[in-house]
Amino acid sequence: MQLLIKNGRIITATDDYYGDIIVSAGQVTAIGRKLSVPSAKVIDAEGLLVMPGGIDPHVHLDMPFMGTFSSDTHETGTRAALHGGTTTVIDFVLQQQGHSLREALDEWNERAYGTAVGDYSFHMAVTDFNANTKAEIRTMIEQEGITSFKTFMAYKGALMIDDRQMTGLMQEVKQHGGMVTVHATNGDVIDYLVAKHLAEGKTTPLYHYLSQPEVTEAEAAARFTDLANYTGCPGYIVHLTCEGALNAVRNATRRNQKVFVETCIQYLLLDASKYDKGFESAKWVMSPPLREAKDQETLWAGINQNLVNIVATDHCPFMWQQKLMGEHDFSKIPNGHPAIENRMELLFSEGVNKNRISLNKFVEVACTNPAKIFGMFPRKGTIAIGSDADIILFDPNEKHTIAAATHHMNVDYSAYEGWEVTGKVKTVLLRGEIAIDKGECLVPRGYGQFIKRNKVNGKI
Amino acid sequence: MQLLIKNGRIITATDDYYGDIIVSAGQVTAIGRKLSVPSAKVIDAEGLLVMPGGIDPHVHLDMPFMGTFSSDTHETGTRAALHGGTTTVIDFVLQQQGHSLREALDEWNERAYGTAVGDYSFHMAVTDFNANTKAEIRTMIEQEGITSFKTFMAYKGALMIDDRQMTGLMQEVKQHGGMVTVHATNGDVIDYLVAKHLAEGKTTPLYHYLSQPEVTEAEAAARFTDLANYTGCPGYIVHLTCEGALNAVRNATRRNQKVFVETCIQYLLLDASKYDKGFESAKWVMSPPLREAKDQETLWAGINQNLVNIVATDHCPFMWQQKLMGEHDFSKIPNGHPAIENRMELLFSEGVNKNRISLNKFVEVACTNPAKIFGMFPRKGTIAIGSDADIILFDPNEKHTIAAATHHMNVDYSAYEGWEVTGKVKTVLLRGEIAIDKGECLVPRGYGQFIKRNKVNGKI
Amino acid sequence: MQLLIKNGRIITATDDYYGDIIVSAGQVTAIGRKLSVPSAKVIDAEGLLVMPGGIDPHVHLDMPFMGTFSSDTHETGTRAALHGGTTTVIDFVLQQQGHSLREALDEWNERAYGTAVGDYSFHMAVTDFNANTKAEIRTMIEQEGITSFKTFMAYKGALMIDDRQMTGLMQEVKQHGGMVTVHATNGDVIDYLVAKHLAEGKTTPLYHYLSQPEVTEAEAAARFTDLANYTGCPGYIVHLTCEGALNAVRNATRRNQKVFVETCIQYLLLDASKYDKGFESAKWVMSPPLREAKDQETLWAGINQNLVNIVATDHCPFMWQQKLMGEHDFSKIPNGHPAIENRMELLFSEGVNKNRISLNKFVEVACTNPAKIFGMFPRKGTIAIGSDADIILFDPNEKHTIAAATHHMNVDYSAYEGWEVTGKVKTVLLRGEIAIDKGECLVPRGYGQFIKRNKVNGKI
Amino acid sequence: MQLLIKNGRIITATDDYYGDIIVSAGQVTAIGRKLSVPSAKVIDAEGLLVMPGGIDPHVHLDMPFMGTFSSDTHETGTRAALHGGTTTVIDFVLQQQGHSLREALDEWNERAYGTAVGDYSFHMAVTDFNANTKAEIRTMIEQEGITSFKTFMAYKGALMIDDRQMTGLMQEVKQHGGMVTVHATNGDVIDYLVAKHLAEGKTTPLYHYLSQPEVTEAEAAARFTDLANYTGCPGYIVHLTCEGALNAVRNATRRNQKVFVETCIQYLLLDASKYDKGFESAKWVMSPPLREAKDQETLWAGINQNLVNIVATDHCPFMWQQKLMGEHDFSKIPNGHPAIENRMELLFSEGVNKNRISLNKFVEVACTNPAKIFGMFPRKGTIAIGSDADIILFDPNEKHTIAAATHHMNVDYSAYEGWEVTGKVKTVLLRGEIAIDKGECLVPRGYGQFIKRNKVNGKI
Ligand SMILES: [Zn+2]
Ligand SMILES: [Zn+2]
Ligand SMILES: [Zn+2]
Ligand SMILES: [Zn+2]
Ligand SMILES: [Zn+2]
Ligand SMILES: [Zn+2]
Ligand SMILES: [Zn+2]
Ligand SMILES: [Zn+2]
Repeated sequence: MQLLIKNGRIITATDDYYGDIIVSAGQVTAIGRKLSVPSAKVIDAEGLLVMPGGIDPHVHLDMPFMGTFSSDTHETGTRAALHGGTTTVIDFVLQQQGHSLREALDEWNERAYGTAVGDYSFHMAVTDFNANTKAEIRTMIEQEGITSFKTFMAYKGALMIDDRQMTGLMQEVKQHGGMVTVHATNGDVIDYLVAKHLAEGKTTPLYHYLSQPEVTEAEAAARFTDLANYTGCPGYIVHLTCEGALNAVRNATRRNQKVFVETCIQYLLLDASKYDKGFESAKWVMSPPLREAKDQETLWAGINQNLVNIVATDHCPFMWQQKLMGEHDFSKIPNGHPAIENRMELLFSEGVNKNRISLNKFVEVACTNPAKIFGMFPRKGTIAIGSDADIILFDPNEKHTIAAATHHMNVDYSAYEGWEVTGKVKTVLLRGEIAIDKGECLVPRGYGQFIKRNKVNGKI
Repeated sequence: MQLLIKNGRIITATDDYYGDIIVSAGQVTAIGRKLSVPSAKVIDAEGLLVMPGGIDPHVHLDMPFMGTFSSDTHETGTRAALHGGTTTVIDFVLQQQGHSLREALDEWNERAYGTAVGDYSFHMAVTDFNANTKAEIRTMIEQEGITSFKTFMAYKGALMIDDRQMTGLMQEVKQHGGMVTVHATNGDVIDYLVAKHLAEGKTTPLYHYLSQPEVTEAEAAARFTDLANYTGCPGYIVHLTCEGALNAVRNATRRNQKVFVETCIQYLLLDASKYDKGFESAKWVMSPPLREAKDQETLWAGINQNLVNIVATDHCPFMWQQKLMGEHDFSKIPNGHPAIENRMELLFSEGVNKNRISLNKFVEVACTNPAKIFGMFPRKGTIAIGSDADIILFDPNEKHTIAAATHHMNVDYSAYEGWEVTGKVKTVLLRGEIAIDKGECLVPRGYGQFIKRNKVNGKI
Repeated sequence: MQLLIKNGRIITATDDYYGDIIVSAGQVTAIGRKLSVPSAKVIDAEGLLVMPGGIDPHVHLDMPFMGTFSSDTHETGTRAALHGGTTTVIDFVLQQQGHSLREALDEWNERAYGTAVGDYSFHMAVTDFNANTKAEIRTMIEQEGITSFKTFMAYKGALMIDDRQMTGLMQEVKQHGGMVTVHATNGDVIDYLVAKHLAEGKTTPLYHYLSQPEVTEAEAAARFTDLANYTGCPGYIVHLTCEGALNAVRNATRRNQKVFVETCIQYLLLDASKYDKGFESAKWVMSPPLREAKDQETLWAGINQNLVNIVATDHCPFMWQQKLMGEHDFSKIPNGHPAIENRMELLFSEGVNKNRISLNKFVEVACTNPAKIFGMFPRKGTIAIGSDADIILFDPNEKHTIAAATHHMNVDYSAYEGWEVTGKVKTVLLRGEIAIDKGECLVPRGYGQFIKRNKVNGKI
Repeated sequence: MQLLIKNGRIITATDDYYGDIIVSAGQVTAIGRKLSVPSAKVIDAEGLLVMPGGIDPHVHLDMPFMGTFSSDTHETGTRAALHGGTTTVIDFVLQQQGHSLREALDEWNERAYGTAVGDYSFHMAVTDFNANTKAEIRTMIEQEGITSFKTFMAYKGALMIDDRQMTGLMQEVKQHGGMVTVHATNGDVIDYLVAKHLAEGKTTPLYHYLSQPEVTEAEAAARFTDLANYTGCPGYIVHLTCEGALNAVRNATRRNQKVFVETCIQYLLLDASKYDKGFESAKWVMSPPLREAKDQETLWAGINQNLVNIVATDHCPFMWQQKLMGEHDFSKIPNGHPAIENRMELLFSEGVNKNRISLNKFVEVACTNPAKIFGMFPRKGTIAIGSDADIILFDPNEKHTIAAATHHMNVDYSAYEGWEVTGKVKTVLLRGEIAIDKGECLVPRGYGQFIKRNKVNGKI
């Protein structure tokens, strides 16, 4: 079946024009003025923005954690994403130390395959880099289409690799056309502060925040950037939150280096005053924690400086009951907050609507750069001939209020409860199918496809 | 008449896909797969790149200089530009000290109107900012569509304004939605070194170079950036050439500032070894002068860091006879070199072809950013529905050699004589007309239109 | 006559020990434990610190200004300095534009010679650098012992030289073994803001402050530092007040450059809240103006980082009646404040006593570095064999309160009225004579000598 | 017995004058012109420089290593030091992982006590920071007079502590008035590169150098500086060798931080071309390795910028036979080179004599700063009343050539064989005894005393 989207204002990372779009066989096949296709189903986009489906390259769905799992499965998570205008997500496969990448991938495939509603891909988190792991890198890139390798500079004993492994991994990944991404915080210092605070009886969520001061992130961002420069491997810092860390990236420009930077919507909008709410603050216990007003300014500026390239979510929701695991010990609070559904509307409302960023920049950081940086372009991330018809129709003026009662994520609180948003996702197409319309999800469980990704070289 | 461009690989600053383009009434009206328009003239783009017409935002045509003029008129210059794939240029109107902006604009209009073959706009160079000038700023922006104001930190007594005037101008321009651009070199220091060298009998072109050391540019770039930050005025540095100057911009990112940066094709490709050729070096006497290998690396990296936003030319050709005015005194050599025709092909050949920048980046810095930064977007600078059909068909594989004997610029030498280039402009459309085809210019003198520009806010 | 100072705790920039000092013929001739000189006058220093006499390298005595003069003459100013423990000052000779350095020196000699009570030297302020001035530089250094040349980057038309002159001056001064010092603020921007504020009817002292924002100083400090680096001339920034300006010096360390920095006591202790007092704020109208708390922190840290080398005063007092010249126009308020008498005690009380700096550092920045940097060492600035016996006995515990009623400066207000100070100058020796004792000045008008200074090379 | 040193030119970190010195009971008791002491032994210093005995705060004597020991014992090492004008050294006690600080101290005391010829103190190297170690810190500082705690960011499994331990150590040390010093190189990255090179069959000394690229030091210096800033603990970087690492310290000045920096004589004078000599290069196998010309410039500049505070040696000699342990595997070459005897003369010859640093600066970095920074001042490090009479008489003009055949270190090669030096230590006093004269050591084994050190606060 063909679709004809009429009279929308079409926005890409570069363009901004009025036109009609013809969708055939799941792809965009024509764009123009006053197009007509006799047999096509017509969607009226008059007064609406027509934009590429969002891509959230940092989500944790159905992630095993202390005997439980993050509360959104690939089904509920990608469905909620679709409601919020995000048509593709990249989830993290976590290698278990002592085990292979393959085992982890098998496990994740099992959970995601046939359940996801929206499209998805995987980053491979390398938590144990050794001779065996090294041998798997090329296969992951060339056969599995997994071209990004996540590393942790924190969580020693569980996820962390040391700088020896980091250097080795970078050299291997570079050689085969991949990229290394990083959770850049100094885990040793954090572990020290966590233990110190607990030993002093400081157990509330506030001490989660105080155990991860800016220096822990700034230091690690600088260290990762140094090693990426030394090895020449394309590098990407996930969930960068603060001035100190961005300055590491800025300084690196002086040696002609480019490192990609992702921030998350929460770091742009929320601040550490959320940790003054007693145990309710557990809703915002995530790592890195929320920061200060100065950091928000740095991040918004960083977007316009093209130093912050992507706005993601690090979506990792837990039910309140799960959060209560840490009621008497902040270090036992499952880390993460729900945002997969809210990212696009919040970024539009606070970014575009408040003149902090342009409409093109909105599309660039929410849709296009994730596709380009992670090797899914031009299939994903834009509205262009031959691209997947992942398209959202967006009313820039409709006001609504975020609430757990009405959201679609499988979590019983909202991190943005009561937040008034201007701009609403009205209709979402995924590969030419109407996935969301009038608040209903019209595609079934299992509609989502795994997206194999291309090699990258650090230039977009 | 309608045109149908078939089967090209269409490249914009964001996109990269195969498709057909329909052009009607001078604009792009449809893009798609397998389009057909019975009555349309068909252009076969099989095997070719289809890209937006280039925009060169820094050219000097028919510029008065010491009783003579730069040797390309608006006619010859824009025609040569078209041959090289550049469909729009921005020329500089130079206020004469003691006179009004209006007088200067009238004079430039007279020379350009009815003569230009390609489209053009004007920057207004403010060389005498006073109460009268101040009163003209708003008119220039709102009535004349001239939204960028060029300043000189050098050429005291002729073009230079001091920091007092700079600050006042910035405040006025900001208020009305314009931008201040700058020739950022410390004229006082240069004047001192020129006088010193001449007094010492050092009169060859080499001393042109030695009279403008990197510090003169780095210092001025930093000073301009400081004042732009203080006033909050959008700022743009023309023809940035060196590491020191780019570092000023990089440092400014730490205070959350964004300044736009233009470099020129010659600073990416040529270096100061050109000044070791006796008086022949006069061919490359321009200001700032060519720099070192380290600076070329910085500039290429700067493009990929998104800190260098535009690649222009500062095209300002003089016949060899004119260059000879400075045979015995380098300070009398007319400054400037011819490049308006070579920019696109050189940047493609050295940038894209040698994997320094991506195809999208090529379009971004050569076509799209000039349009966006200077308020001509979306009319110019992209291939999208409703945009002017300024389109080039480009063979990425055709090899040719640059030579004065075959170029179309009105100047009797080439700065790139013998340079082997891979990639050639085959066909150029300007507002839907075939302007260049098979090496012939098919549109007449006077076809070029003046492009009024929109207000800007420093965000793109 | 010989003096024997018994049992003091002797402090130099390096040392800290208990001992006795023998003074003969105006010089220190022996230091040791339990010394005895039968015929000597004995001064008991039990419980006291014995330190070198202070050197204030930045004062303006009897300075012509708008038909009047700064209110301390060389007599009253150096006498007040002695009361405060400062035994040597360096005053500024101001060349008049269009006139020679020699004429200015003659004029200043006439005012200072035979009147100064304490020792003094001169900086030569070059306000008009041309071929004639250039020819005088060597004479000043080699014959007059004036080895430091002050420049102004502000006060266009009166004192300012442009960067052309600055570069030429630096090259000439370097060649003959001198140093260039600078009032580093961007005069053009300040002139613009002053004119703008006055035009808007903003005439109170607050607008003096608002007309000299941090950027005006940071920019000029960076520019001066750039030029000093380019020419290789030893450079010195007077009265540096703020983080932005110190960062210029810090950045320059990355290119292996060293620039000397002077701050003044007021910038360490007072802040811009002084400008909220209506016209009374005129007491603190000086250039640069007082800054913010962050700047004070930077300056104290800068001392411990050895990046701020000297604490001076820029003493330039005016009677309240003189300040009233600017009652209706802040730009007519004579710039400057009285501090020559307070510097040593304030720096001790706020610096040493509050553990911000060590005792040795106190002597280094208040006594020794001025002597070393300006070529008076080892005659001045230390307590060592053969050095002038310029010595202060200082009670580190005595508390007192600063007041105009009791100070010795010829000015009818105190900038520190009511400030409680711990630490008091008890006795002062100048060239072996007891100049101050029990609050009395015991040496006559004309006792002060002009100190010829040695060549310098920027290393100490 | 009393000594009278006549007619020398006495140099301290501040002063420079001619005079006589009386030494009684091991201390300086008087300094002056034409002093006479009837009973004193007179030493004629006419034509000589009289300076404080040098302090080398970084030596490894009798250090256990792979079943052997560094070849200089406390006896031979301190005796050689005396020959070279160094009267006090600070050796490193190395805690063994799993054991206490006390055990290590006992062991070192046993080796040094009664054997050292010159004075010595100990740094405590904390290689295993845990609750037990933590409890020993205060005792070390308050009872043992060991106030500096050395850490290693390299040598995992043997000496390295992680950042968790580093942070904990800093907080404990700060609390009790100590300082943390660091071997700042990223051991993980080095371990990776060593293993990689060996696996590739690259076993020569050149690969020792290539396994420790500048980034490994720059990164670690930045990380240590970050943690010192976070904890507020006084910090000190040993053997800093390169621009990247010094830039970390320079950058930290922008946040008002001060970190002390030591370089070693070899990093000022030798460069990596020493690694092109086949296995002979093993003579210069040390960690960090020698660097480049640019780094030497940075270090000399750093001294004059007061950012490099001390010039030490990291003296750690091994006989050629010991070096041969690594003949087929560079990682088995014992690290270190002999310099304890050469430091003062080399620094004078290359620094003072070649006008890179002043005489005062020479004393400051070689004698005074080590005493001040490490809490031995004013007993050690200067020539002043009451200080230990640790004094050298130095002929600034005598030329000689360094050779293993004539040196006094217990090692069968010289790292500076054939180096021509201007300036020679003629006589050395240690606590008032003539320790060296006419090339003979006149004090016996065991003459050296252990120097308890004072608390420090990071300000000097
Ligand atoms: Zn993370
Ligand atoms: Zn995550
Ligand atoms: Zn220019
Ligand atoms: Zn130009
Ligand atoms: Zn001044
Ligand atoms: Zn002054
Ligand atoms: Zn070491
Ligand atoms: Zn060592």
